[in-house]
Amino acid sequence: MNGFIYNIPTKIYFGDKLCMLGDELKKYGKRVLLTYGGGSIKKSGLYDRVMKELKSAGLEIYELSGIAPNPRIESVREGANMCKEHGIDVILAVGGGSTLDASKYMAAGAKVDFDPWLFLSERAPIESALPVVTVLTLSATGSEMDGGGVITNLATNEKLGRMEDILRPQASFLDPALTYSVSSFQTAAGSADILSHIMETYFTTEPDLYMLDGIMETLMRTVIKYAPVAMKKPCDYEARANLMWASSWAINGFITGGKTHAWSVHPMEHELSAFYDITHGLGLAILTPRWLGYCLNEKTLPKAAQFGYNVFGAPATYTKEQAAEYGISELSRFFFGTLGLESTLGGLKIGRENFAKMAAKATGGGVINGFIPLTAADVEKIYELCL
Amino acid sequence: MNGFIYNIPTKIYFGDKLCMLGDELKKYGKRVLLTYGGGSIKKSGLYDRVMKELKSAGLEIYELSGIAPNPRIESVREGANMCKEHGIDVILAVGGGSTLDASKYMAAGAKVDFDPWLFLSERAPIESALPVVTVLTLSATGSEMDGGGVITNLATNEKLGRMEDILRPQASFLDPALTYSVSSFQTAAGSADILSHIMETYFTTEPDLYMLDGIMETLMRTVIKYAPVAMKKPCDYEARANLMWASSWAINGFITGGKTHAWSVHPMEHELSAFYDITHGLGLAILTPRWLGYCLNEKTLPKAAQFGYNVFGAPATYTKEQAAEYGISELSRFFFGTLGLESTLGGLKIGRENFAKMAAKATGGGVINGFIPLTAADVEKIYELCL
Repeated sequence: MNGFIYNIPTKIYFGDKLCMLGDELKKYGKRVLLTYGGGSIKKSGLYDRVMKELKSAGLEIYELSGIAPNPRIESVREGANMCKEHGIDVILAVGGGSTLDASKYMAAGAKVDFDPWLFLSERAPIESALPVVTVLTLSATGSEMDGGGVITNLATNEKLGRMEDILRPQASFLDPALTYSVSSFQTAAGSADILSHIMETYFTTEPDLYMLDGIMETLMRTVIKYAPVAMKKPCDYEARANLMWASSWAINGFITGGKTHAWSVHPMEHELSAFYDITHGLGLAILTPRWLGYCLNEKTLPKAAQFGYNVFGAPATYTKEQAAEYGISELSRFFFGTLGLESTLGGLKIGRENFAKMAAKATGGGVINGFIPLTAADVEKIYELCL
Repeated sequence: MNGFIYNIPTKIYFGDKLCMLGDELKKYGKRVLLTYGGGSIKKSGLYDRVMKELKSAGLEIYELSGIAPNPRIESVREGANMCKEHGIDVILAVGGGSTLDASKYMAAGAKVDFDPWLFLSERAPIESALPVVTVLTLSATGSEMDGGGVITNLATNEKLGRMEDILRPQASFLDPALTYSVSSFQTAAGSADILSHIMETYFTTEPDLYMLDGIMETLMRTVIKYAPVAMKKPCDYEARANLMWASSWAINGFITGGKTHAWSVHPMEHELSAFYDITHGLGLAILTPRWLGYCLNEKTLPKAAQFGYNVFGAPATYTKEQAAEYGISELSRFFFGTLGLESTLGGLKIGRENFAKMAAKATGGGVINGFIPLTAADVEKIYELCL
């Protein structure tokens, strides 16, 4: 068991707390860059509510809209330039993971003189960043409480991310009611994303704290219980609240404890959505059960069986082999049956033509040291299993 | 379901990280007040290790030792005066909950001109405080990550506490190996304290997030699994690590979510240890099963049954009544059998002579609105059940 450093200072306003937004922002200064996506926040009325709070707090507002899903480096560059040009004090990101991720790199980009893509392509050091405050409208990426962000560069077919404590938002407003308007498909894909974050951490052969395993199992059961409820009853507060808070804790770093293994499914999926611009959570759902099946061996069996018993309730009479298989088949049934997600790459009209190239990129020319070590050849086989 | 504000910025160095202590302290300035208890840290060698780190960081060290279990207001006054006199920049508390609790009020007392007892007796506002960093040697109170502290005034027979975000430590060093030397009795009493913190939050008739219930059940199962291991094998890292991290999460505020009900057993116990100076965790263990049995009614039954099923594994075939009774009897068996704690107040030579006075104080002349509302008459009956 390894030691670790736990450092998650983001303050969370959970529930209907938007009336505190102005006071929170004023802590950092007067000039706010408001970032958002395609305008759904205007339709929903959230834009007007936020503007009212900012104006009554006497803040000076600049706006950058049009941040796309799988956010592009072009948006980051534009935001960073706006921050410099207008002397922005704090960025307010209103939206889902894409808007939040892009805003984090704008915050860092505002402090340097070079192209912010270098933060990702060259891992240029991130030594300071403007404060970021968020108002979340989609439960999925966990960006509201972590220091991560993934940016797409379509010019180079790259989708790259990193995690830095300095990029954690100062505060996030999590109102489950703001996710009532999330579509059934986005709810399903977001839930697959949350589950994947937990599973990337959970599936390891490294020993770690028992309590963290139990907490991860609880978080997974929470998503499995409430994702279908939120799809059927979009305005079910309890379902939306559980998904929202679970999404933050799936990836803020708490469940990681002292584990040091690499994530496996995310790098494989990032190539999929970099090449085909598919929804991240959908790609994760297609990949995860195949990956898990591919990983089964003597060393991984105990954890895979524990997943079957504790997350999907495999009967105690099952052998470990049976429990592991049960867990994987129930997970498939959950993604492709209950959530109704497309189950194959073929169904998305994705063929094998780029598999070799994607596999080489996903492994960075080396090995992903996750639940089992994966070479490019392994990754290619897993893509094949998804066809 | 209520909204809530989550704000737990304390940074945690978990494992063998003492080499980072100097750098952490230097952030706040040069003059450190080192606080500790009865000198066990000198016997264990921890004192020398800490001094070595402080000296090599070039810090100026002042010391206040002799902080007693159930820490006294006299220590707080002395520490606050030392902070003012020497212009202390940061307090380093090395020890268990008592040292940490006292240090928090010293940190606040350093900033005011009045007697720090007024923070507790009159709830004088705590508007600022010196930064506090801790090195924990006992898993129990959770003081390393929360804003709480309980101080005893033997002159007035009062034991009072409060919770303020501003009193949260800036950083805490949690090395499970530092708890290897904790005695079997203190391990048992500390574990009862951790369990009680979780149960005070868990047992409510207010609806709250499903995921938080699951996390609380995981934390309780963690303590139940590892407390006996740590008692039998004091140097079992895994057991000590699970107890240590569970103790922080039992009371740092995360599991509270949107619940607003009052705690019940802690105020009853505080009177016991204020009057008789008994170990806090022992008092909690004696009270809790009796309190829980006393609370059983139609409204509380579902949660009590859930506790029986999910924490102690009552068979699914049990009725709710059976599951609730099973949970309570297993809890008693755990405290008084497995952990070997004294099971009655009579066994501690405590009679009923002060029950009426203690009950009146515990309820503050009103009602404790916890799992069920408790009047002074109720509390007196619960004390009677403990004889």
